[in-house]
Amino acid sequence: MTVASGNATTMETLPPDFGAWTCPLPLRDYPEILLAHGGGGSLMQDLIQHLFAPAFACPELDAMGDAAVIPSPGARLAMSTDSFVVRPLFFPGSSIGDLAVNGTVNDLAMQGATPLYLSAGFILEEGLSLQVLAGIVDRMAEAARRAGVRIITGDTKVVERGSADQVFINTAGLGVVADGVHLGASRIRQGDAILVSGTLGDHGIAIMSVREGLEFDTVIESDCQPLHHLAEALLRIGGDSVRMMRDATRGGLAGVLQEMASASSLCMELEEAAIPVRDDVRGACELLGLDPLYVANEGKMVAIVAPHRAEPLAALLRSLPGGERACIAGTVSSRAASTVTLRTRMGTHRLLPPALGEQLPRIC
Amino acid sequence: MTVASGNATTMETLPPDFGAWTCPLPLRDYPEILLAHGGGGSLMQDLIQHLFAPAFACPELDAMGDAAVIPSPGARLAMSTDSFVVRPLFFPGSSIGDLAVNGTVNDLAMQGATPLYLSAGFILEEGLSLQVLAGIVDRMAEAARRAGVRIITGDTKVVERGSADQVFINTAGLGVVADGVHLGASRIRQGDAILVSGTLGDHGIAIMSVREGLEFDTVIESDCQPLHHLAEALLRIGGDSVRMMRDATRGGLAGVLQEMASASSLCMELEEAAIPVRDDVRGACELLGLDPLYVANEGKMVAIVAPHRAEPLAALLRSLPGGERACIAGTVSSRAASTVTLRTRMGTHRLLPPALGEQLPRIC
Repeated sequence: MTVASGNATTMETLPPDFGAWTCPLPLRDYPEILLAHGGGGSLMQDLIQHLFAPAFACPELDAMGDAAVIPSPGARLAMSTDSFVVRPLFFPGSSIGDLAVNGTVNDLAMQGATPLYLSAGFILEEGLSLQVLAGIVDRMAEAARRAGVRIITGDTKVVERGSADQVFINTAGLGVVADGVHLGASRIRQGDAILVSGTLGDHGIAIMSVREGLEFDTVIESDCQPLHHLAEALLRIGGDSVRMMRDATRGGLAGVLQEMASASSLCMELEEAAIPVRDDVRGACELLGLDPLYVANEGKMVAIVAPHRAEPLAALLRSLPGGERACIAGTVSSRAASTVTLRTRMGTHRLLPPALGEQLPRIC
Repeated sequence: MTVASGNATTMETLPPDFGAWTCPLPLRDYPEILLAHGGGGSLMQDLIQHLFAPAFACPELDAMGDAAVIPSPGARLAMSTDSFVVRPLFFPGSSIGDLAVNGTVNDLAMQGATPLYLSAGFILEEGLSLQVLAGIVDRMAEAARRAGVRIITGDTKVVERGSADQVFINTAGLGVVADGVHLGASRIRQGDAILVSGTLGDHGIAIMSVREGLEFDTVIESDCQPLHHLAEALLRIGGDSVRMMRDATRGGLAGVLQEMASASSLCMELEEAAIPVRDDVRGACELLGLDPLYVANEGKMVAIVAPHRAEPLAALLRSLPGGERACIAGTVSSRAASTVTLRTRMGTHRLLPPALGEQLPRIC
């Protein structure tokens, strides 16, 4: 592994794969965001009509009401929200725009919901390049198409230079939960298996590599992706055998399992040899003094499933795009209530303590 | 009117009417927000369990899932979002917490929906006083109770000192739209009346007074309030006669009417003598060089209604709390497409041009 540590490449400029964006006429006079773009006047209307509306076009948004009106998609709904403050705005494999869509899509999916509708709230810093904003919006629109959700309502605020850091995005999401789907920590049983849908730590290390200006033989890309198709397949085939699902974002796998352990008063026992970590991610973690089990992911889920269905459900995940390296990473026991442990390759048991916070701030 | 212009009173400390808050035990060690409070570890869990969960307590939030699961409240839903960046955080009559709830409640209400559920996303600056955050959360909880909505899901992010300005809040809302309610600019007709639910400019001037350190004989308070009960009464009694409703926030009455004029290709003719403005607000506007028709409100709505129902519907609003000074402020004509005009007290017509942006940044 070759590692070159140079000046931090912040990549705040657009990534190379983002094509030339031609500014629509009314926006051209203002290459940067002004306070007035958030002021409810004609500049804000320009931003809505020439940037947001074309990118997110759908009948609900086009109606331009104070709220979007939609038919109820079913008897049980799921609602979720997430704000995104990640830096840099664009990073290998993804961007704040992709995160803003997939983060909320995944929160809905983990509750067993089919994600359908998103809201988008932008907080912009005065002086933000419109080109950068358009790049983010373009990524959001593409991520929404990929995840099968519509952005149906939104809001824009602008704060003075120095009062925010370029752009923060909030999304809230609405989905429909099928009849008979009931997930939660109270359904976890001793003996259940812990499934992980793929390699751990990719997102956190992708961000950290860019921030620290590290160069590896290969570029480590974020795993940011929507997980709803994996979750839906698990529930369709696994039914009641699926006890609980979570995406392993901030706090990593250890953080999610800690919450599950606390909520169920059971012990989550991981098997070190089984946990998939990419070689380059493992190398970077060693270099940076990070534990991949605590590093954030943006396209990996943890599912607690009944033991007799664990193997076929792991195989099911492996058969689907985005789940190729799914595996059984451990089991639920009653060894020590509310703890997470790791059985090392040497057969010893190590406690994975709760972290105070994320090792890398502003990871999402 | 006595006006004293002194040092700006930023009121970033808690307002006098906010009682002593006793910090729950696990939070006491950290009087200020740390980056780790947004990191997905045990500090974030402390914040959720000891601050957010008790304040917003309801079964949906208590389930602590990635998303909240709710029964669908009806066949047609409304979804909306708003971010709040107002400064100062506490100001006469209201706070960012009240605004964050009522702003989204009102967006839903203006679409004819009964507001039911909110999400809350916090972006906190490292170093924010926990006491201040608790004060804001307390106001949000109280505003939610008053508006009859539940905060069922949330998210917290923390950014480094200097990367945000204390606290930004996003709320998204979900409501149910009754059968037969259809509102929109396409329903506006020549001859319709323009109803305004009360005095204009109170919120903007309340904020500006604090920022500029102006002192008047009386304290000018923000009009921040939920409007759902006024909107519901209008629809219940007015039925199809109610064409469209909007709350007159950023951009003020003129801004909202400009959007209605553009969307309907009709002319909104205001009657200067009819428009209610408090004397102290008018005085402050003259002093500050502001036009109250363009100043933001946070508890006033505009409704376009059929002419024959205008008087009884204005009287209905006046009979309800928060609508005491409702009136017919003008009429819809076809005089000049997509414009807003003002018939002055002298009988002349003045064009009210679209504003580029809000006169006061960060008003909400």
